[in-house]
Amino acid sequence: MVQEKIWTAGLVVIGDEILSGRTQDKNIAQVGAWLNVQGIRLKEVRVVGDTEPAIVEAVNTLRQAYDYCFTTGGIGPTHDDITVDAIAAAFGVPVVIHSEARRLLEDYYATRGGLNEGRLAMARVPEGAELIENPISKAPGIRIGNVFIMAGIPSVTAGMLAGLTGTLEGGRPLVSVTVGAHAPESEVAELLREVERSAAGVAIGSYPFSKEGRFGSNFVVRSEDEALARRVASTLAERLGEAGYDAVDGGI
Amino acid sequence: MVQEKIWTAGLVVIGDEILSGRTQDKNIAQVGAWLNVQGIRLKEVRVVGDTEPAIVEAVNTLRQAYDYCFTTGGIGPTHDDITVDAIAAAFGVPVVIHSEARRLLEDYYATRGGLNEGRLAMARVPEGAELIENPISKAPGIRIGNVFIMAGIPSVTAGMLAGLTGTLEGGRPLVSVTVGAHAPESEVAELLREVERSAAGVAIGSYPFSKEGRFGSNFVVRSEDEALARRVASTLAERLGEAGYDAVDGGI
Repeated sequence: MVQEKIWTAGLVVIGDEILSGRTQDKNIAQVGAWLNVQGIRLKEVRVVGDTEPAIVEAVNTLRQAYDYCFTTGGIGPTHDDITVDAIAAAFGVPVVIHSEARRLLEDYYATRGGLNEGRLAMARVPEGAELIENPISKAPGIRIGNVFIMAGIPSVTAGMLAGLTGTLEGGRPLVSVTVGAHAPESEVAELLREVERSAAGVAIGSYPFSKEGRFGSNFVVRSEDEALARRVASTLAERLGEAGYDAVDGGI
Repeated sequence: MVQEKIWTAGLVVIGDEILSGRTQDKNIAQVGAWLNVQGIRLKEVRVVGDTEPAIVEAVNTLRQAYDYCFTTGGIGPTHDDITVDAIAAAFGVPVVIHSEARRLLEDYYATRGGLNEGRLAMARVPEGAELIENPISKAPGIRIGNVFIMAGIPSVTAGMLAGLTGTLEGGRPLVSVTVGAHAPESEVAELLREVERSAAGVAIGSYPFSKEGRFGSNFVVRSEDEALARRVASTLAERLGEAGYDAVDGGI
């Protein structure tokens, strides 16, 4: 049997506002879920502030460690938006104005006061980069090598991801099947371990909840083999039923 | 003038469910905001999956790079909860049962079916660790050296942080003052840069929004010197007013 390649990605989330707690990040969950559908596993995330050395180190580490490296944040027009400069530095290339991005911005601002220096900053890319089409808003993402530069605002990043959907080489999507039960995880730890060991290529995660005064857990069976995931989930549900725990609809 | 020490921290968020996008992390924002109040700056976050080598590397890197290292996630009773073992490995010490933690669990489960193997797993700590009191729920956190091991469930972590409040050495809290205006950030990039440069020890972040069809931005002035932050925020508000932008209440 040939071992299939597992495609992997890292993500660098850039922004002082995430580290200070002012802004609740939503891009980790969004990018992670999108990557799963592309058959790519998000293996690591680093959140760093708006300082060039921190961005350079994180991007250089993750782009070498994984097949793909994504970044979010720091690509607006203001002085604290230094992602493009930092990634150019990481690749050792200069920053240039991308002619197609400039044209997009000229069109957009034609009826909105014209292109000024701040706005033109949004057409700056590391030399050799290409744009990632954004079918949802005008702002394009940027690709250089295996690095994909996305916006900080989650809805804009969603547009950029939509533009990339289906274009990256990946493996089989990871499938999750959730089994919910009124079973406190501390009582069924051994049962879970046994069921997980009974099948190769399956991982079971356990996520406790307390709802309407009753304790329970969602058990998430993950595999690249959908039939296998469903089979193991059925076995788990059966074993939990035999042990006297009633089922709850999966999902918290 | 003596340069004040800036106290720093790193955070390791542990869990496949965060990377897969199944669970929206809330601990980065929570820990970051809490640290600010303690006068400690969150400098970097790493999100890693439930695998020992990834946890060991992230914890060893961040505990050496910063004054404090926090972790969240992976301290429950099931097979995928490997944080305690990984951190023991990071420190090169064995895992032991903490007698006080065992007593807490015995008391709690006395009327709930007693302590079983799965439940006792929650009393396991790296040798030499101490417990972090949790005034809100029974689950204690764990401290070893400069590493603070917290829960994955945000409300439980909140309790552990409450138990730590005021106990860590830190500097002056970072103060933020927000100035909101109907000013698209692309038009005022130069103005912001000037105001930021006019005062040392102040950073201005810019966060665009679109509300009820109008574009605007929140400009956040951050400093350890509250009077200075307020002074610079007033200057900024004045400059924006002079440039013809009307004010909006700060905060998105």
